[in-house]
Amino acid sequence: MTTVLSPATSASEHAQGDVPLPSWNEGSAKQSIIDFVRGVTTPGGAHFVKHEERIAVFDNDGTLWTEMPAYFQLAFVFDRLKALAPQHPEWKEKPFYAAVLQGDMKTVAARGLRGLLELATMTHAGMTTDEFATIVEEWIAKARHPKFNRLYTELIFQPMLELLAYLRANGFKTFIVSGGGIEFMRVFADKVYGIPPEQVIGSSIVTKFEMLAGGPVLTRLPELNFMDDNVGKPVAINMHIGRRPIAAFGNSDGDLQMLQWTTAGAGSRFALLVNRTDSNREYAYQISTLGKLDVALNEARTKAWTVVDMKQDWKRIYPFET
Amino acid sequence: MTTVLSPATSASEHAQGDVPLPSWNEGSAKQSIIDFVRGVTTPGGAHFVKHEERIAVFDNDGTLWTEMPAYFQLAFVFDRLKALAPQHPEWKEKPFYAAVLQGDMKTVAARGLRGLLELATMTHAGMTTDEFATIVEEWIAKARHPKFNRLYTELIFQPMLELLAYLRANGFKTFIVSGGGIEFMRVFADKVYGIPPEQVIGSSIVTKFEMLAGGPVLTRLPELNFMDDNVGKPVAINMHIGRRPIAAFGNSDGDLQMLQWTTAGAGSRFALLVNRTDSNREYAYQISTLGKLDVALNEARTKAWTVVDMKQDWKRIYPFET
Repeated sequence: MTTVLSPATSASEHAQGDVPLPSWNEGSAKQSIIDFVRGVTTPGGAHFVKHEERIAVFDNDGTLWTEMPAYFQLAFVFDRLKALAPQHPEWKEKPFYAAVLQGDMKTVAARGLRGLLELATMTHAGMTTDEFATIVEEWIAKARHPKFNRLYTELIFQPMLELLAYLRANGFKTFIVSGGGIEFMRVFADKVYGIPPEQVIGSSIVTKFEMLAGGPVLTRLPELNFMDDNVGKPVAINMHIGRRPIAAFGNSDGDLQMLQWTTAGAGSRFALLVNRTDSNREYAYQISTLGKLDVALNEARTKAWTVVDMKQDWKRIYPFET
Repeated sequence: MTTVLSPATSASEHAQGDVPLPSWNEGSAKQSIIDFVRGVTTPGGAHFVKHEERIAVFDNDGTLWTEMPAYFQLAFVFDRLKALAPQHPEWKEKPFYAAVLQGDMKTVAARGLRGLLELATMTHAGMTTDEFATIVEEWIAKARHPKFNRLYTELIFQPMLELLAYLRANGFKTFIVSGGGIEFMRVFADKVYGIPPEQVIGSSIVTKFEMLAGGPVLTRLPELNFMDDNVGKPVAINMHIGRRPIAAFGNSDGDLQMLQWTTAGAGSRFALLVNRTDSNREYAYQISTLGKLDVALNEARTKAWTVVDMKQDWKRIYPFET
C-alpha cells in the first residue's frame, strides 16, 4: 500500500504553506471555504468556534473519491462472489447470483439496492473482522478501475485531500460518514485520507463476540446492522461523534440529511456539494448507478450552500495528474 | 457544573509532573501501570507502540466512579419516573411503576435487569436528543448521593483521574466503554473525566431523524438499540474505535470480554480490575445491585492481570478528600 501513501502525505505537507487549496481554481467555491475557516478560527471574532467543536464530516463515494461506473465497494462484492463461486456450485441455480457471475449487469441492476445489499451482506460475512480486513487489503492493493486502469485508491480527489489537510491544519477533526462499509473503508482511510479508524463511520453488518480455542474473535454475520445513508447519517453522527458537525461535505441526495443536520446548528456552519460536470477528466452526471443529486442540489440553491462545479472549480482532479 | 471541573483539570496539571499517580500507594498495582506505560512509550524498546495505537478503554460504573447503592443512572431513571408521574395517572395501576413511585425497591429489584431496562428505555425516550441532554444536565447538577450527600459527579475516583491524565500525557487516547447510556454519560464525561463525546461509548436506544417545522431533530424512541455490556463491549469497541485497545480497565464480570479482547492482541497489553475492599471510604463488595466480580477475578489471577485493592492501593478515593 506504499503507493497510496504519498497523496495524503504531500497534501498535509502543503497544508500549512502560504497558499491553501492549490488545486482549487480561484472562485466562489474556494473563497467560501476560506472565508468559513477564517471565521471560525479567528479568536475573538463573531464566528469563532473552539477547536474541539470543529468537527467536519465527509461522505466518501463521489465526494472523496470517484463512484463511477459503480461504487468501488460493489466491484469488491462482485470479485468476492467470483472468488467464492467454486466453493458454491449451488449459486449457478440462483438466477441473481448467476447473473453476477456471468457479468450480466442489467439483471443485477434491475434488482436495485435490495439485491446489492443482499450480495454485499453475503460476501462480507462468514469470517472474523481480522480476516475481512486482510481480504480487503489484498483486494484494494491490486484491483483496478475499468476506465482509468488505476488502483481505486489512486482515484481520490486531490482538491479534497487538500481540503482535509487545510481543515486539520486549522484545528478541525475530520470524519468520514459514508453509506460504504465501515470496515471496508477503515482498511485504507488512514493511509489514503489521513483519517484514522475511529473517525470512519459507515454502514455495517452484525458482528458477534466468540471465544474460540485460539482466543476471542469477532465473527461477521450475514445480517445488516446499520445503513448509514440518508436519514441514517445524522443518527450515526450522533451515535459516533456525539456533537453536531460545523461543516459537511457530500455529493448526492443521500447526503442531504447530513447537510441539513449540520447547518441547523447555531453559529457559523458550512455545507458543500460536489457536482460532477467533467466528462473528460472524471464523469459528468447527476444520476449515478444507485444515487442521484437532485433534491439536495435544489436545497443548496435555496440555502446558499457551496456547490462545486468540478470542471470549473478543480484545477486538478486526481493526485496522479501532472 | 464548575465544581466538577476542578478534579480532572488538576489531575491533568499534575500528570506531567515528576511523580505520576500521587494518590496510588507504592505497590505492585501502581508499579504494573508504570512499567506498562514505560514499555510502550520507550522508542526503540521491545514493547514500543506507536502513539496512534495507544488506545485505552475504561468502564465507567464502579471503575471511574462509585456504583453503589445502585448505578447512578438508575437514580436518574427513578427521579424521571417521579417527575413524569403526575402526567401519567395510569401508572398507579401498573404494579411495577407503582412500586418505583412508592420507593418499594424490593419489588423493583425482583424484576431484575429486564424491568430496569424497560424503565430506562421508557424514561429516556419521547424527546429530542438536545432535550434529553438538558434534562440530564439539570438533574446531575443537583441530585445527591444518599450516603455521601454529594453530587454524583463528585464521587469519581481520584486515582483513576490521575491514571487517565497519566495515560493521556503519554500519548494515549482514552475512551469510556460502559453499559451506561451513551447520551447520559456524554453530558458530563468531558467536564468530569476530560473524555470528549466522540470517545464515549455506551448503551443506546433508537433515535430517528425527523424534519419538523423548526428544523431537523433526532427523536429518542422507547426501543433498545444496543446493550454495551459483556459480549457487547468488544463489538462496540470495534464499531466505534475500529482498532483493538492495548489497555482496558474494569471492575466486574461485565468487563470480562473487553479485557479478553484487549489482551488477546499482539505485543504489550494491560488489563486492570478494581476490586472494592474499602467499606469505610467507599463500599466493600463483589456483588452489586446488578453486577458481580467473580469469573473476571479468577481470570485475572490466572492471567496475571492487575487487581486493585482499593483499601490497600488507593491513598485517596475521592477528589474532595483532604
